[in-house]
Amino acid sequence: MCKKMETKKELRDRVENVRLRESEKSVVILDQTKLPNAAKFLELKTAKEFYDAIYELKVRGAPAIGICAGFALYVLASRFEASSNEDFFAQLSEVKHYLASSRPTAVNLCHALDRVERAALSGKDSDIPEILEKMKRESIAIQDEDIAMCRAISEYGLTLVRDGDGILTHCNAGPLATSMYGTGLGTLILGAERRRHFHAYVDETRPLLQGARLTAYELDRAGIDVTLICDNMAGLVMRQGKVNACFVGCDRVAANGDTANKIGTSSVAVLAHYYGIPFYVFCPSSTVDFHCETGADITIEERDPSEIREKFFSSPSAPKNIRCYNPAFDVTEAKLITSIITEKGICRYPYTQSQAERLQG
Amino acid sequence: MCKKMETKKELRDRVENVRLRESEKSVVILDQTKLPNAAKFLELKTAKEFYDAIYELKVRGAPAIGICAGFALYVLASRFEASSNEDFFAQLSEVKHYLASSRPTAVNLCHALDRVERAALSGKDSDIPEILEKMKRESIAIQDEDIAMCRAISEYGLTLVRDGDGILTHCNAGPLATSMYGTGLGTLILGAERRRHFHAYVDETRPLLQGARLTAYELDRAGIDVTLICDNMAGLVMRQGKVNACFVGCDRVAANGDTANKIGTSSVAVLAHYYGIPFYVFCPSSTVDFHCETGADITIEERDPSEIREKFFSSPSAPKNIRCYNPAFDVTEAKLITSIITEKGICRYPYTQSQAERLQG
Repeated sequence: MCKKMETKKELRDRVENVRLRESEKSVVILDQTKLPNAAKFLELKTAKEFYDAIYELKVRGAPAIGICAGFALYVLASRFEASSNEDFFAQLSEVKHYLASSRPTAVNLCHALDRVERAALSGKDSDIPEILEKMKRESIAIQDEDIAMCRAISEYGLTLVRDGDGILTHCNAGPLATSMYGTGLGTLILGAERRRHFHAYVDETRPLLQGARLTAYELDRAGIDVTLICDNMAGLVMRQGKVNACFVGCDRVAANGDTANKIGTSSVAVLAHYYGIPFYVFCPSSTVDFHCETGADITIEERDPSEIREKFFSSPSAPKNIRCYNPAFDVTEAKLITSIITEKGICRYPYTQSQAERLQG
Repeated sequence: MCKKMETKKELRDRVENVRLRESEKSVVILDQTKLPNAAKFLELKTAKEFYDAIYELKVRGAPAIGICAGFALYVLASRFEASSNEDFFAQLSEVKHYLASSRPTAVNLCHALDRVERAALSGKDSDIPEILEKMKRESIAIQDEDIAMCRAISEYGLTLVRDGDGILTHCNAGPLATSMYGTGLGTLILGAERRRHFHAYVDETRPLLQGARLTAYELDRAGIDVTLICDNMAGLVMRQGKVNACFVGCDRVAANGDTANKIGTSSVAVLAHYYGIPFYVFCPSSTVDFHCETGADITIEERDPSEIREKFFSSPSAPKNIRCYNPAFDVTEAKLITSIITEKGICRYPYTQSQAERLQG
C-alpha cells in the first residue's frame, strides 16, 4: 500500500535539527557539538544566542545554517520595538549583518538572510505584522524547499539501489546538515521510511570524525543497519563483497564533473573503481559550478595540524612538533564517478555534456 | 668517504628499545606505551616485571619481544640460587613457561626462549657460570642477528630509491618493533645514517595510531623529514606527486606473495597501483610461509570495537552501542606488490616462482 503524501507541515514537524517555534517566537536546534554523546536541544531567542550557535557549530551544514539564519531573522524582527517602518528596517539591517558575520564564508547563510530581508522589503510600506508574516512565510519556504530538494534527490537515488544493498558512506551529508533526508544519506533515509533495507558502512572520517559522530548517529536513529569502520577499512569491506555502492555528498562540482568533497572521498572512489563498485555523488544542482571548468580550479583548504594530533584525543597522538598535512577536501576525478544525482535528475559521464543538458537547460 | 663498518657491539650500543645491562643483570626497555608523550626507560629485573612489560605492550613488535625475552631468561637465570644443575634447569623451565605465557600467540617470544634454553642445555653438565655464559651469548646473538638481518634488508631497500624521494609508510615497522633499523622503515633509517635525504609521509594508522605514535616518533628521532597524515589523505598526497614509493612491513606472506599486514595496507597498495607508484613490502625471509598457498588461507583477526569508538579519545567518538567492524589486518594481493624485500634479496612478481628460488634454495 502506498503511503499517503505528507503535507509540507507534516514533513517539517519531523525535522529535528532546526525548528521554528511560532508560539514562542524562538528556534529550537539540536546541539551538534554534543553529539553523539548527548542529544541536547537548545532554544534560541536572542541575536547573540543565534550568532553563537552558528559560530560554535552547534548548527552546521550549509543548508541547515541557512535555514536557521532565515528563522532567526524573522524571530528577532518580531521582537523589535520599532517606532516606524524606517526604524524597523534599520534594526533589521543591523541584525542581518550581525548574523551574517557569524560564519562569513558560508554562502547559504548570506543567501537565506538576503531572501528573508527581500521578503520584508517587498512589503516595506505595509503594517509591521504584515511584513513579519511575509518574513515568516519566506523563512519557512527556505526550509520547505530544502526538504523538497533533498527528497527529490533521494527519489532518484532509490532508483539506483536494490533492497539489501550494502552502502558505504564517507563524511556526513544527512539530515543534520540539511533539514531532512540530506543529500548523500537521503536515499537511505527515504528508503527506511519505505521499509527498504540497506546496510550502511560508515567511514569514521578522520580527522574530525563526522562519520562516527554524526552519520552513525543519524542513520542509527533512522533505523538503518549501521557498521562503523575506520577510513582505512573501506578497501577491505569492498573486497569482501559487502559494499554494493558508495554514496557521498559534495561541496562543489566542476563543469566537467570533477568533485570536491571531504578529504578521503577520492580514495574511496579509487578503491570502488578497483573493486568494480559504483560510486555516486549526491548534491543540489546549485552545487555544480559551471564557472569552474575542472577540479584543477578548486583550491583545497588546509586546516590546523592540531586536528590530527590533538583534537578529540585524551593526550596528543603524535610527537608534539611533528609536521602534519591536514587538507580538508580532495577532488575526485570525474571518470571515477558513476553518476551525479541532483534534484533535476541523474547525470552520467561525460559530465561536461550531461550536466549542461540536464542542469543548465 | 665511506663510514667504517661498526662492530656488533657498537651497533648494539645504539639500540634504544631493548638493551642488556650486563653489569646490573637487568634489561632496560623504552616504554612504548608512554610514546610519543614521554620517552621513559624502565629497568626490568624480576620475572613479574618482564611478564608485565610484555603483556602490557611496553615492549612490542615481534622481534623486539623475542629479544627482550631472550635477555630476560638469561638475567633471571643468573640470579637463581640453585643447589644443583638439576635444580637450575627446573627453575629455568618454570621461568621460561611463565614468560612464554605473557603473549601466547607471539611466535618470536617462544622461539627466543627456546633458543636460550637450548643453549643452556647444550652445556647441561658444565658449571653454572659456564651455562650462564652460553645463555648470555645466545641472547646477544638473537639481537645481533636481528640487527644484521634488518640491515641487510635495508641495504637492498636503498637500491630501490633515489635521494629526495617521498616515501609513504603505513603502521610501524621500525627500530621500536625490532632492535635497530626495522624492516619497512630500515631503508629510511640506514639512508639517514648515510646522509641520504628522504621525506616520509606517515599514515597515522587508525585505530591504534601506530603511525602517529611510533613511526612519526622514530623517524623524527632519526633526523628524517616527517609529515604525518590521516590514513584517508594518502590518496591525495600520491595524486599530488609527493610520493615516489610506498614502504610497509608485514606479518605474513603467502607462497604466492599475497601479504597480510596492518589494516589499510591493501588500500595503500590499490591507491599506489592507480597512481603508478611502486609498492614495496619489507620482511625477514622467515615471514614467508610456504605452507600458506595464498592470502585466502590467512585468517584476519577481529578486535574489540572499543578501539574504534573509545580508545585514545577524551569522550566516545561514536554512538554508544553502534556496531563497529574492527579487522586488525588485511591481505594485499600479490599483483599489487612491486617487490618483496628480504635479507636474502629482492623477490618480484610472480612470487610463487621468485620466492621459491630466492628464499627456499
